[in-house]
Amino acid sequence: MIMSRIEAPRDEVTGNLVDRLLSGLPAAAVLTDPDVTASYANDMASFCPSGTPAVVVLPRTVEQVQHVLRTATELRVPVVPQGARTGLSGAANASDGCIVLSLTRMDRILEINPVDRIAVVEPGVVNAVLSRAVEEHGLCYPPDPSSWETCTIGGNIGTASGGLCCVKYGVTAEYVLGLDVVLADGRLMTTGRRTAKGVAGYDLTRLFVGSEGSLGVVVRAVLALRPKPPRQLVLAAEFPSASAACAAVCRIMEGGHVPSLLELMDRTTVKAVNDLAHMGLPESTEALLLAAFDTADPAADLAAVGALCEAAGATQVVPADDVAESELLLQARRLSLTALEAVKGTTMIDDVCVPRSRLGDMLEGVERIAEKYALTIGVCAHAGDGNTHPTVCFDAQDPDESRRARESFDEIMALGLELGGTITGEHGVGVLKKDWLAREIGPVGLEMQRRIKQVFDPLDILNPGKVL
Amino acid sequence: MIMSRIEAPRDEVTGNLVDRLLSGLPAAAVLTDPDVTASYANDMASFCPSGTPAVVVLPRTVEQVQHVLRTATELRVPVVPQGARTGLSGAANASDGCIVLSLTRMDRILEINPVDRIAVVEPGVVNAVLSRAVEEHGLCYPPDPSSWETCTIGGNIGTASGGLCCVKYGVTAEYVLGLDVVLADGRLMTTGRRTAKGVAGYDLTRLFVGSEGSLGVVVRAVLALRPKPPRQLVLAAEFPSASAACAAVCRIMEGGHVPSLLELMDRTTVKAVNDLAHMGLPESTEALLLAAFDTADPAADLAAVGALCEAAGATQVVPADDVAESELLLQARRLSLTALEAVKGTTMIDDVCVPRSRLGDMLEGVERIAEKYALTIGVCAHAGDGNTHPTVCFDAQDPDESRRARESFDEIMALGLELGGTITGEHGVGVLKKDWLAREIGPVGLEMQRRIKQVFDPLDILNPGKVL
Repeated sequence: MIMSRIEAPRDEVTGNLVDRLLSGLPAAAVLTDPDVTASYANDMASFCPSGTPAVVVLPRTVEQVQHVLRTATELRVPVVPQGARTGLSGAANASDGCIVLSLTRMDRILEINPVDRIAVVEPGVVNAVLSRAVEEHGLCYPPDPSSWETCTIGGNIGTASGGLCCVKYGVTAEYVLGLDVVLADGRLMTTGRRTAKGVAGYDLTRLFVGSEGSLGVVVRAVLALRPKPPRQLVLAAEFPSASAACAAVCRIMEGGHVPSLLELMDRTTVKAVNDLAHMGLPESTEALLLAAFDTADPAADLAAVGALCEAAGATQVVPADDVAESELLLQARRLSLTALEAVKGTTMIDDVCVPRSRLGDMLEGVERIAEKYALTIGVCAHAGDGNTHPTVCFDAQDPDESRRARESFDEIMALGLELGGTITGEHGVGVLKKDWLAREIGPVGLEMQRRIKQVFDPLDILNPGKVL
Repeated sequence: MIMSRIEAPRDEVTGNLVDRLLSGLPAAAVLTDPDVTASYANDMASFCPSGTPAVVVLPRTVEQVQHVLRTATELRVPVVPQGARTGLSGAANASDGCIVLSLTRMDRILEINPVDRIAVVEPGVVNAVLSRAVEEHGLCYPPDPSSWETCTIGGNIGTASGGLCCVKYGVTAEYVLGLDVVLADGRLMTTGRRTAKGVAGYDLTRLFVGSEGSLGVVVRAVLALRPKPPRQLVLAAEFPSASAACAAVCRIMEGGHVPSLLELMDRTTVKAVNDLAHMGLPESTEALLLAAFDTADPAADLAAVGALCEAAGATQVVPADDVAESELLLQARRLSLTALEAVKGTTMIDDVCVPRSRLGDMLEGVERIAEKYALTIGVCAHAGDGNTHPTVCFDAQDPDESRRARESFDEIMALGLELGGTITGEHGVGVLKKDWLAREIGPVGLEMQRRIKQVFDPLDILNPGKVL
């Protein structure tokens, strides 16, 4: 009786749901206090609506996750799987009356095997924790989204996350060999393998990577690892225009170079980083290109790339003297989005990826769009991938500026598609871009994607309203 | 009238089918002569039943493929897509009364783009033709199945082919960015992208890779390319036992080395190659390991790996002096399967991939199985991947030996699963291994795979009876 008095008031439907959940979960794993559950309502995307969860559950075992899904199926309650909620597309946003299924407490690294070069992990393992753990074995888990210090492997798998490493090492998808997935009805399915190769049946592993929790809940992953590369050395090159920097990117890639990082910051971004962190970056320049190599002889590679930058019009090329100086340049790049957020209080971060041969057209187009809408749009980009993050800076209290921000954001996606690109290189569709998905993949693709969703989630309880 | 007289006799159903096909295909693209069509009945797998095709079609355009699929749907006729029929699982075998859809005449390379590092190709392009074409641009298309001089990219995509390169460069799946696919009902669907990254919606591209023509017909592919690496240098190491060679493989991979090739030939294979081609390989040794590096300083890498081999018990370590000598060693490896075929006239080539830490157990187990069934089983292996090809040599005219061959083949797969491996690393399921698929992926996985098949092929006309 005392117990029930200290619980938050709840209506009969929620009460029944909570009771059923508690029949297979410890009390500490079921949160119902509205003040607490509200804090699980959103990921980090702007302009994405979210609802009020009925309950938040924090299971520690596969069986507990199965219990949650069985309960959800029985009671027809939507389930929103969550990692660390660092996503940028609203994919982890709660819907009204849903069960938020937070996987953060399933955070064990189950195995690291240097001969097979694999790790087996639970979904709540933080990316940086895994990265450091495998480093001790001389190994490396490359995917490094900006949020790597807090984001989880489960979240990375859900959104097929990228990062700075992708130009050489690819995205999360490339590192997922096999999965244990709890299906909507609570059954457990194993996909893939722990071997280096395997082609037994359709590739369901890849289907789950990037599916944003809409097809099932990943409870275990077999990840591929690589030998730890040498520490990278970084070069910074200043350009008189974004176009010149993009031309340099094309020459570098065309020249057969394999940088471990090839990043671009435009003037707006450079200034924002200086304003925030006094990094002393050159503000007189229109675009800053950072290139890095983690090869046997990075200085030689940087020299070759530096020469290509100069040929493309770079006004200054500065190779870092050592690892510490390199790390400082990377820190500046990693601060970009935070710094742009400080410009006007709010940002909308786009994630348009174009063929890298069209990178210059993309940046010129974004400049035109910024002018048209009288907005500040900073661009940082994983230039080597053609993956741009045009970041619209605006005052969310100003309705007109907010409207223009939203419109410019959409126009940037339209431009990306026009240039043969995609509306999302690494952040995912979520809520933010689902109206745009059909424009990219077309009606036949959309229909087949919907049917696949129905195969795995016939009652539409898994993260409904996301992706499709 | 004259036309109909010189045509092969055909029954009414086939006659109607052929007439309908001819309404959207030139006469030269429709083959009905039974002597000719019979030559399209099989791929290169042993022990796989095949039927008699009603007709073979050889379209040159996407529209023609659409016409074939529309006709097949309308008349409920099964369609068996084919590349060069070099597959080893019976996936391209005809079924009775089917339309064989050969894509070999759709063989244009549509684009090679060195800045975006992509090629856009039709499915009938031969692997070696593409490889040579991109080399001229300083690029490389790594997947190199043994049949690379004749097999097609469409076939490689259908079976997710591997090859010698995989230990460093991965399998075909890693190089397919986007596809145009004609669905069972004749509609055209585009999947994926031509950008380096992209996460818009579920990954349908990967679903088609390795689906053996059972979900749709690939008519165009966007492939990722890499910069052409330096020519590799090869080292050969002789071991007194297969176990010692496998231990060396483990030490090499554990040591963080990234060989471009790491292959194993057992004594039976070495002897077979010598018998066939007088290569002068050392027959007194129990296992020969070939390692290669295509790095900036391959000699240094080979020296390091050579030392590891010696520590693992190698009796002789011989680095190739130059590229020509390296090529000779690789040629010996590439001849392995042909050479083993010559031993008894027929082979069954298994394709079991185990975690590389279990490679030694796998080879010991195969030796036991060979003894138990009194058979010659040669093993060559992509050792760095843990991908073994135990090859049962037998006389197909001898019913008892044939039975033992089949039984030993199955026992090898069972052993692979027991060691945490997969029944197929790179050859696919086809007809040969479909009874085994359920044992590997379990009932839930199998059910979901069947449902996905139904999504794309509700009438079950696409390569029916294969994979699932």
